[in-house]
Formats: sequence, structure tokens, C-alpha cells
Amino acid sequence: MDSLVPETRVLAVASHVVYGHVGNTMATFVMQSLGCEVAALNTVHFSNHTGYRQFKGTRATAQEISDLYQGLCQSNLTDFDVMLSGYSPSAAAVESVGTIGIDLQEKAEKKPGSFFWVLDPVMGDQGRLYVNDDVVPAYKKIIPFADLILPNQFEAETLSGIKITSLETLASAVTAIHKIYSVPHVIITSVQLFKLSQSGSTPSPPENFLTVIGSTTRSDGSPRLFRVDVPALDCFFSGTGDMFAALTVARLSEAVSAVDGLRTTKSWLSPDDVAATDLPLASATVKVLSSMHSILERTLESRDAELAVAVPALEGEASAEELQKRDYLRRTKAAEVRLVRNTRVLRDPKILFEVQDWKKEDLPKDLR
Amino acid sequence: MDSLVPETRVLAVASHVVYGHVGNTMATFVMQSLGCEVAALNTVHFSNHTGYRQFKGTRATAQEISDLYQGLCQSNLTDFDVMLSGYSPSAAAVESVGTIGIDLQEKAEKKPGSFFWVLDPVMGDQGRLYVNDDVVPAYKKIIPFADLILPNQFEAETLSGIKITSLETLASAVTAIHKIYSVPHVIITSVQLFKLSQSGSTPSPPENFLTVIGSTTRSDGSPRLFRVDVPALDCFFSGTGDMFAALTVARLSEAVSAVDGLRTTKSWLSPDDVAATDLPLASATVKVLSSMHSILERTLESRDAELAVAVPALEGEASAEELQKRDYLRRTKAAEVRLVRNTRVLRDPKILFEVQDWKKEDLPKDLR
Repeated sequence: MDSLVPETRVLAVASHVVYGHVGNTMATFVMQSLGCEVAALNTVHFSNHTGYRQFKGTRATAQEISDLYQGLCQSNLTDFDVMLSGYSPSAAAVESVGTIGIDLQEKAEKKPGSFFWVLDPVMGDQGRLYVNDDVVPAYKKIIPFADLILPNQFEAETLSGIKITSLETLASAVTAIHKIYSVPHVIITSVQLFKLSQSGSTPSPPENFLTVIGSTTRSDGSPRLFRVDVPALDCFFSGTGDMFAALTVARLSEAVSAVDGLRTTKSWLSPDDVAATDLPLASATVKVLSSMHSILERTLESRDAELAVAVPALEGEASAEELQKRDYLRRTKAAEVRLVRNTRVLRDPKILFEVQDWKKEDLPKDLR
Repeated sequence: MDSLVPETRVLAVASHVVYGHVGNTMATFVMQSLGCEVAALNTVHFSNHTGYRQFKGTRATAQEISDLYQGLCQSNLTDFDVMLSGYSPSAAAVESVGTIGIDLQEKAEKKPGSFFWVLDPVMGDQGRLYVNDDVVPAYKKIIPFADLILPNQFEAETLSGIKITSLETLASAVTAIHKIYSVPHVIITSVQLFKLSQSGSTPSPPENFLTVIGSTTRSDGSPRLFRVDVPALDCFFSGTGDMFAALTVARLSEAVSAVDGLRTTKSWLSPDDVAATDLPLASATVKVLSSMHSILERTLESRDAELAVAVPALEGEASAEELQKRDYLRRTKAAEVRLVRNTRVLRDPKILFEVQDWKKEDLPKDLR
């Protein structure tokens, strides 16, 4: 069928919420909309995302996660092309997910490229961890088995040990991640470049632009860096990282399938003569960000329409605190990403952005 | 957007499986594909459906189900137009689900038609219960609060106390369900009419046809019966009941929205002068069955293609029993309903069937 990516069977391991779209409740529908067959293994079962500041529900234990996977194994239901792993509620759960990824890699060993693990190392943001400290070493142990990781700026700093303060240190962080973890593909999903110090001759993007940095290693382990700048929208949306990851799975599968023989190459690694801007990872990223921007623009419109409707008065007296809480909950709900009425921009995005190469002057000396 | 039903917010309460499509793992995507915003509250978390004869995972307790709903309530996330409730793993869980449905009905009391509860009383099939005995009375208690129920033949017999052996007894069973439970809409989702005794002048459909019987009450409580005959496909598919329920939610919402004022009428009850075959429930059923037939035909093709691929030899020796089990698992997997590549027939079904009126001679004397 037109507008669908080639058939791709995905095991998606992340959180589930009843209301709204984050974690698997975002990723599953996004990938399904693009034609992927998705098996969702849920690591938590919450009523709503934590951005509401209150929720109810339960977390899956590491044992429960392992058991579900054992259930798949015993009935020969592990024919996955891709695993996408996101939020896990504890270090032990991260280990369980790691064991699944490693097992699927081993099962695929004799068929290079037949399995690809996209790992989103969900640990924190904006300079702080929001998981237990022991989750960090748990991720560090399993990342060497992944094919692509999707840290944000803070997570990239945590994994590389390099504070990102300039384009040079950003390039060093990506290089370090490739080297330390032997991970062939990396995308740093949001860097606020205008906050970094100016360097080289590359103009910084204007304020309120986010920069996405990606790289696929060459055979000598050196990075092939590309960058895409996108305007940030003036609203906080939950689940955008999960939308990015899900779209990346589908679009990378599509881009790799379009290149002869790449799908049967270990880790879908492009030959050394492919330039950074010509990488399947780069063209996938441009499509992903174009879909996301359109979805979020539409979400913003729907949010404004929802907030424009008058709020019914509360029965009885309400304290200022109660009114403030109700208003916060209402704004959070209104900002839930609108997916189901907007699948067309997921499937057929208007390409809004372009991939840029890195200038030599912006690279650390050893990479020039 | 074209091909989507009007905006409908659905709370879907049913089972979740990692692999394949049954329960909420069927219903959620089907309703989302048609443009419904779905909140999935999962009552079990299994690796796969029970048709594989083995699975791993956990069941939600009644308390966990209630807690998730409380989580929604405390953050004002209960603005649902429809609730679709399916499999619950215990009598206590059925009660929890019932409490949710009753609470949502109460919340909507001042706005007639603003909430509609579709209840699939999942209890058994083919003459036997597959839930605990105490689940039956639990359902009997909550059905009076539902707007539409979707029993199969066995469940309709269980609820009505009438053994269905003819068209007359079938009509009596529907009438009894309307009366005993004051439930305004009923669809009996599959009756093998050719197995019933011939009666009246209505020709029985040929063998291997399934008949779907629906009815919406008039204001005096009498039924308005319609019927749709569809050819059965030669394969057992899991999750078809859930697909039927999910499509019915979307198509009934669509059909009711097309009638002036009906969406704001309690229980979406059509005026008495609307004939059975002109009911929104009838036109919805025809669309639902058309989509289902096309999806299952495509599933059958994909199944045959999957089974035609040679099976790799097992390493080491395998007993006859092991080989047989592997073959059974493989056939069960191959019959998983194919959804994600076939959304077009969900959204824009070619209408394959027509709704039929009941002949007077096929009705019990008091209904003629």
C-alpha cells in the first residue's frame, strides 16, 4: 500500500499510559500508522504521564518483563526486525530489557542486518537525572549491544563524560559515545546550540531553534556527523522523544531498505564512501523531524482551541490552590499530542528541513 | 480529514497482549485507524492470546483497574464519549469495570447521549463458559447500565435463559435481553442459522454463513430486529469479536452523528417510526461486517503465504509431539489478523452485505 514503509516487525518496550500519548502509547500507534507490525511490551501501566504531577498505576518488575519475553520465546514469536526500547522503571528492569536485546542480537547473528536495536537511554533531561542513580551504569552495560542510541543532550553528556558547551565538545561527545560503547549510530535528539559558545565559522541558528545531531561511524570508528536545525514550538509537549524514536524506527527501516544490500549488512552500516549528509540515518532524520513539526503545530492549534473554551464553574467554593491545580491539569491535558486525526502528516510529511554537513572548523582537531 | 468518523473519545477496557491482535491490542488500533481517540485500560498483560495454548503474563486485579480509573478522575481525564468494555479476568474485575461504566453514566446524566457504553459480555462460546461461574451474575448486575451489548449466541442464551434453536427462539432471546436488562441495543454477533431448525418462509442462508442479529428497542420496549448474513471464512481467527466491537463503536458513532439530534438523545435511541433496517445500528453493522470480511480475506491470503514458506529443520532430534506443537504454534501465528497494512479497508470498506428485515412468520406470536 502506498505511503507505508516496508514491512517491519518491531518489539517496542516502554511505558503504557491509559490517557494520552507517551512511551509505548505514543510509539505503538506512530509505528503502526506507518505500516509497522508492533508488539508492545509495557514496562509500566499508569493512568497518565507524570507531567500531570499525579498518576496512579503499577510498574512491571524486571521478572515480569523477562516473563513476557519468555512467553514470546516459547511460542516462537520473536521474529522481530527491530527492537525499540525506551523507559524502564528500574536498573533491574533496564537489565531485563538488555537481556532481551542481547538475546535477539544473538538469534540474528547468522543473518547480518536481520535485527536492529534502537535504544533510547531514558535517564534525565535539562541537567538532572529523573531515574535512580543505578540506572546509569545499567544503561552503560547494555548500550554496546545496541545499533542506534537516541540520547538527549544531558544523556549524551552522562554517557560520554563530556560536558557539551560548544560544537567542538558536541562532536567530541558523539565520537566518545561511538568509541566507548562501539555503538554504530547515534542521534542526539535536542541540543540548544544558541546556548553554546560560538565557534568556527558556522553561524549558530537563531534562538528557539533546536539542533539534532546524528552520526554513523565509518569502518575505522570515526564519526560521520550531520545536523538538522528545527524551530522549537512555544509549548512543552510530553512524549516527543518517544515520537522521535518511533518515527526514526520506521523511516530508518525505509531508508535502509532503499539501498541495495544495506538491509543485510550488520548494523545497517553504510560503506565508508557515503558522505554524512547522504546517510540513511540523515534522510530518515529529516523526514522524522518534518512529521514531528507538523504534528506539533497541529497539536498547538488544537490546544489553543481547547483552552479557548470557557471552563464551567466549580460547584461550591474552591481555594486558590484548587483553582490553580485545575488550571494546570487542564493545560497539561490540552497539550497532549494529537495523533489519530493527523496520521497523514505522519505518513506523508511535507519536507520542511534540510540536513547540513559539519564544517571542519567546528570539529575537534583530531577529526578535521 | 476524509474517511475518519466524527471525533469520538473512547475508554477501552480489555486485555493486552504483546504479540498479535486480540482484546485492546485489536480494538485500540482499529478505533484509532478510524480516527477515535482511545484510552486503553488493560485488564491483563499477556505475552500472546490464549489460542496458542500457552502464554505468560499477569492479570490486573480489580483494585488495580479501579486505581487506574481513579487516576483518570483525579486529573479530570474522563471526558469519554464511549466506553467499550471487553474481557475482564474475574468477577471482581467485572464489578470494577461496572463501577467505572456506572460512574461515567452518572457523570453524563445531565447531558443525554453524551456518554454511551458498549459492553461485550465475554463469558464463553460454543456452548461452554470459559470464565469462572461467578462472572455470569457479575455481568447480569452491570448490563442494565450499558447502552449496547454484544453477546455471541452462547452468551445470549446465558443472559436470556432461552436456548436458541430457531429464528423464533432467537427473536425471543433478544426480546428477553431487552426486557430483563432494559438494555436498548443488542447485537448477537454470530449465529449459525443453518444449524437451527427451519421455520417460517425465510430461507435459511447456505451452510457456512454466519448471521448477525441486531435490535434497538422502541419506546414500549419491543425489539426492532434486523439481520445481516455473511459468509464464514474457513479458518479460526482470534480477536474477531474485539474487531467487531471496535468497528461498531466507530461506525455507530458515525451513523448516529449523521442523524439530527440523535447524538443528544439518551442511549442514542431512534424514534419509533424508524424501521429496523433504517436504524443507525443496522447501517453501522453492515459497514462493520464489510470491513471485517475484507480484513479476514486478506489475513487468509497472508496466512497461506506465510505457511507456504518452508520451515527450517530443527536442530537435533525432535519428537513427534514437539514437531506437532511447533506446527500448531506456527499455524496459530500465521492466522493472526493482519491490521496495519490493511487500514484502508477499515476506513473505506467496500459494502459487501445488506441488512434484511425479519419476516413476521419468523417472529414469536406476541411480536407479529
